[in-house]
Order: sequence, then structure tokens, then C-alpha cells
Amino acid sequence: MITANLEKEIELRIERICRELTKAGYDAMLVSSNVNLYYTSGRVFSGYAYIDSKECRVTYFVKRPVGLQGENVQYIRKPEQIAEILSANPKKIALELDSLTVNDYNRLSKVFIGSEIVDASSILRYLRSVKTDYEIAKMKECGVHHDEAYKHISKMYRSGMTDIELQIEVERRLRLNGSLGIFRIHGESMELFMGSVICGENADAPSPYDFAMGGAGLDESLPVGCNGTVIKPGMTVMVDMCGNFNGYMTDMTRVFYVGKLNELAKKAHETSIAIHHRLMKEGKPGVPASRLYEIALEMTKDAGLEDYFMGHNQKAGYIGHGVGIEVNEAPVLAPRSREILEKGNVIALEPKYVIPQVGAVGVESTYVITDAGMKCITNFPDEITELY
Amino acid sequence: MITANLEKEIELRIERICRELTKAGYDAMLVSSNVNLYYTSGRVFSGYAYIDSKECRVTYFVKRPVGLQGENVQYIRKPEQIAEILSANPKKIALELDSLTVNDYNRLSKVFIGSEIVDASSILRYLRSVKTDYEIAKMKECGVHHDEAYKHISKMYRSGMTDIELQIEVERRLRLNGSLGIFRIHGESMELFMGSVICGENADAPSPYDFAMGGAGLDESLPVGCNGTVIKPGMTVMVDMCGNFNGYMTDMTRVFYVGKLNELAKKAHETSIAIHHRLMKEGKPGVPASRLYEIALEMTKDAGLEDYFMGHNQKAGYIGHGVGIEVNEAPVLAPRSREILEKGNVIALEPKYVIPQVGAVGVESTYVITDAGMKCITNFPDEITELY
Repeated sequence: MITANLEKEIELRIERICRELTKAGYDAMLVSSNVNLYYTSGRVFSGYAYIDSKECRVTYFVKRPVGLQGENVQYIRKPEQIAEILSANPKKIALELDSLTVNDYNRLSKVFIGSEIVDASSILRYLRSVKTDYEIAKMKECGVHHDEAYKHISKMYRSGMTDIELQIEVERRLRLNGSLGIFRIHGESMELFMGSVICGENADAPSPYDFAMGGAGLDESLPVGCNGTVIKPGMTVMVDMCGNFNGYMTDMTRVFYVGKLNELAKKAHETSIAIHHRLMKEGKPGVPASRLYEIALEMTKDAGLEDYFMGHNQKAGYIGHGVGIEVNEAPVLAPRSREILEKGNVIALEPKYVIPQVGAVGVESTYVITDAGMKCITNFPDEITELY
Repeated sequence: MITANLEKEIELRIERICRELTKAGYDAMLVSSNVNLYYTSGRVFSGYAYIDSKECRVTYFVKRPVGLQGENVQYIRKPEQIAEILSANPKKIALELDSLTVNDYNRLSKVFIGSEIVDASSILRYLRSVKTDYEIAKMKECGVHHDEAYKHISKMYRSGMTDIELQIEVERRLRLNGSLGIFRIHGESMELFMGSVICGENADAPSPYDFAMGGAGLDESLPVGCNGTVIKPGMTVMVDMCGNFNGYMTDMTRVFYVGKLNELAKKAHETSIAIHHRLMKEGKPGVPASRLYEIALEMTKDAGLEDYFMGHNQKAGYIGHGVGIEVNEAPVLAPRSREILEKGNVIALEPKYVIPQVGAVGVESTYVITDAGMKCITNFPDEITELY
């Protein structure tokens, strides 16, 4: 079912999974979420990927679509057929307990009667946080398209525009440049439509979600992001739109302003850029993720900007996060994070500030962790740009 | 935390939930999904709605955003605090077992130690399928915006356009007309970005999802919908884009064609319209949902169109579905559905046909079930329209 290009890559991923399963003493893993089916097969389908760690082999149990080919493809109508097809149930099977619903779990637990069920989530989360060369190449491609779309933002602005009107034009440009639109977030309770454009006081409106920036949103059913604010002189305009062009995504925020730039906002934006420059050197394999947070906080305190750091009325507890198939992967750059940076991590770094009445400032870019430090793959200029 | 307008509505919904809980012998319900938090509070927040059926009272346990007001709002940092705040744990508590993840469930089961945990899903699914006057008014408003956006489709078309290029312009128009973009689907494995524009052979490409129409999609990570087909003479263009303007949504499909309209496609489209007209009279309270499917199938057979009905290579097993906060609510118009139509059901009816090489045809409209039959709330003309 997979193309020749992908075949080696999928083999590599299955091998890595089997190594972790063996280490943990698990005999098999049953993958059921779209993101992890994509990760383990190279495409989304309705069904399951069954990984046998002893034989280091994957079988795709497919419900839909019809017509997938491959010696490891088995068509099923219902999960109960998996047990009939397997010669014997595994002793210990890992399921995705942080995405599987209780009702789906109850059904699967009857399929794997006699098996001990353990959690696959942390293994998959860890493995997906260390990107392969193939994945990094895909993400670099996203960065190029993402940059290209952001070049149009200055040209899209017209005096008197609202935040949502500007956002709609950015959405269209991203789509024309190949964005798939879908914004995959781990955990069903976090919702966002393609990202957000936030300006003025709306930057200080708290949202229900654990995003770095809030915004009141346009409706109580989706209370996040732009809220219809007319962009006026003295405001900053933060553009944080999604860069998923090929199943993977980059995360990039740039800031614009209209009229005279507020001095505090200017200083805060420059501090954010300085933090990026410093962390590009510090962020190397072996460094604790929490250390990057500490450095950013120290630099913020030195600049006297702590009140505005990562929000004002409501603060986010991190300055960065892994990104890949989903926007909130490991590692998390937070004070209590116990994760250690590894070569191949891809991280969105977003030290941001909310200046009351003015808006949000700060840069977000996506970096690959290499032995030489963090290498940026979203290269639109960092400087705050005037809109006129 | 709710506005005066909504207060009576929320009271009514909580009363209906308590009635069902009492009937089932359940003492309480803990709501945790965004859609049902929205249904039980009028807004999305991070946290839980706790409904006590004996006292017929709701308490909102809120984690984020900061600043929500109301005598029934209790701020918490973690779910464990719920047990501390409640005077005693309920004997039987209903949780949303078809959306709660296993890990979240395991945590909550320790909060409600000593309580018997039962499933809230079917109660909420049933209650949400019978819309209140307030909800129907919101959905009618969606229909008006949805119609308005579709009026622009003919003007957007340019010769040589691809399906995705046309879709992007429809997306932009929907957004400018107030669409919130987000397309809420029950069940995490079904993904779609704002709907789909499908033309030519792509209509016959099967997708992994249980949508009435497939499409190969633009990428293996989201294999559904438009695939970059250049719209050419002889093809039909099916536009099935999402109408969520206020937390609720309407579902509407209209079909266009370029050049000469294929005779079989014309006949199938007319059959779809005839099915709509017949079912508008048949769809009344008390009628089995399956009966509407049977009538549509009979009319299809009479027209000799069975091979093309609801897909060709891969078929969908229903001709309609409830719609509201999510696009796939109850009742489902399928052969084995045991649901009986009720006054206040809102149903998207979509008898569609796939004509190989030509494309998909058929109308989808959203209807309210009334004593006098099904009343349409998406009123853009049904006829297949030429693009030139």
C-alpha cells in the first residue's frame, strides 16, 4: 500500500517501534489514531496497524478505503476479525490509551481477551519527537511554503481592515500555496481553525486552550483567536498561522504594526529575537528542555518584561513545543519538563509578550536540533514590520 | 457565565438532561467534551459541567479561561478537586464514554471512587438530536448565510480552474460571510477541512471516511475531497461545503457542470430532486428513519440508477443524517437505523449518485422535521447549474 519512496522510511519507523516495544517487554502494538496510522503506514486509512515486536512486522487491518494493495494489507469489516486472523493473541499489547475512547477500548479489550493491555502513547510520543531525515526534509518543505505565504501579508493589508478580514486573506494564500488546512492538535479538547491573527487588546483576552496566545474569538463555540477588531494605529498584529503542507507542519509567528510602534512592544519584540539568537546556540542534544525555558525567563527578567511574558491576564506555561504531524508534540520547553533535547527534535520556539492595549509581540520559528545547535527552517524575517 | 438570552435555554437543556438521567436511574452526569460543554453551558471552556439530577442543577468546573463569572462556576486546577468540592460522590455517574479517552477516564474514575460509572453518550446524542426552538433559529441563520455564500459560486468559476482553486474561493466566501471554519465531526477518526469540491473521476475515488462522497484528496495524510483535477467540459462539480456560522451548522450540496451535461448525470440529479420532494412529505414525526432510506432506494431502482447510488466503487450506507453542533448527529437515515423521526430533528438529506468519468450529482439540503413534514432551511436552488 505504500509507494517505493516511503517503503524504507516506514521500515525504519517500524524497527524503531519494535525496539522500544522489546525494551518495554511488550509483544505488540495496535495503532488506531489517524496520526499514528499515518506515521506507521504513510497514509491515513480507517482501521488499525498491528505491530508484532518479535517478528518486527506490521500488518495493516483496513476497513476503508477499498482497493489498498500490499502483502501486509488485510481487509476487515470489524475489529473482532483481527483476533481471528492472528494465530494467537499477544501476551502484552500496547494500545493508544491517550487517544482511544473508552467505548472503543472496551470493544478492543474483548478482541484481545487474555492479553495484558498497556499504554502505547508515551512510546509513540517519544519516537515521533525524534524526526528522521525523511521527516525533516518534509518539514523543511513546509517551511519554504510557509515563508512564501507570509511574504504576501504586507501586500494584503488595507487600512480599516479587521483582524478576521486579514486572516481570511492569509488563509487563502496559505491554501493557494498548498496548505492542507487541517490543523492537527493532540488532545480533542484543543480546537483552532488554521491559526490566528491577533491585534490590540484582543491579545489579552484569555482562551480556554493551552495555546501561547489567546484571543476572544468570534463566537462562544470557538472562543480563541481574532474577534473582529479593526486594526488601528498603535496596535501590533500577530500572525500565527498554520504551515501544514504535506502531513507535517511548521509553526511560525511574525508581528506587524500600524502607525507608531509602541516603545514597550518594540523592546519586547527585540527581547524575543535576542532569546531566539541565544537559544539557537544553547539548544543542543543533551540539554534539558527546561533549561531553554529558564534562559528565556532570565533574559525576560533582565529586560524588566516579566509581567508580559507568555501572556498577561492569563499566561501559558511554556515557551516552545515539539511540532511534526501534530502541532503540540514533545519535547515541551517548560519549567518542569523532564525531557532532554535530542538530535532530530523539531521545536517551535515562541517567546512572546502581551502588551496591554497594544497587542502581542514576539517571534515563533521552527528549529531542528542538531549537534551544532538549533537550525531554523522558517526563515521569514524576524523583525516587526510596518503595515501601511 | 452565560448571557441573559441564553439563560432560559440552558435551563431547559439541563432540565431535559435531568429528566433522562432520572429515567435511567443515574444521579449525575459529568460532561467533558467541547461540543457537550457548549451544549450544556452555551460556550466552550476547559473543564467539566457537573449535572446533579436530583437537584436538577449544573455546576461548571472551569480550568480555563480565567474570569468566567456566575454562581454556578467553580474554578479548579485539576479534576481531583471536583470530589473535594462535592459533598458526596454520586452513586451512579454518567460520563461521555464515546469521547473520553482511556487515560482521562482512568483519572476521573479515581475522582469518583465508589461511584458506578455509566455511559452518558446515548442520552446526549438523543437529546441533541431533538433541537429546541432556540437551536432551530440558530440553524436557520446558518442556512441563510450558507445560501448567500453559494450565490457566488457561479461568479467564482473561471475556465481552466482546478477543483482546489474553486474550493479555496468558496472557503474564502464562506469565511467572509461569517463561517467559523471549524468542521465538528463526532468520532476523532473522521477528518475534513471545511468540506469538499469534487469533480470528474475523482468522485469515484474511495476515501477512508464514512462520508457520502469520497475523493482522493491532495495528500495521503488527508485522503479525501478534491485532488487537483482541472475542471473540464463534460464534468460535474459537486460543492459540499460546511455551513457553521454560530456553533451550529447546516449541510448543503449543490452541483454544477461545464460544457454539455451528461444525460445519465442529468437523470440522476433529477431523481435526487424527486426524492427530496417525496421525502419532504413523508418525513414526519413517528416515521422510522429507515423508511426514508427505503423510499429513496425504491425510487432509485425505479429509475435504474442503483449502481450509482451513494457511490460507485465504494458506497455510503445512508442517505442522510442529523446535523447540529456536529455534522454527524442522530438520527441516521440508513436501512438498519432503529431511530424514529421526532419533531425538532434536523436532518441533512443527501441522496447522491456517482457517474463514472463524469462526477457526482444530487442535492443535499438541511430540513427541520415538523408535523407538516420536512421544512427546508438551505434554500439555494436545487437545479444543476452551468458554469461558464
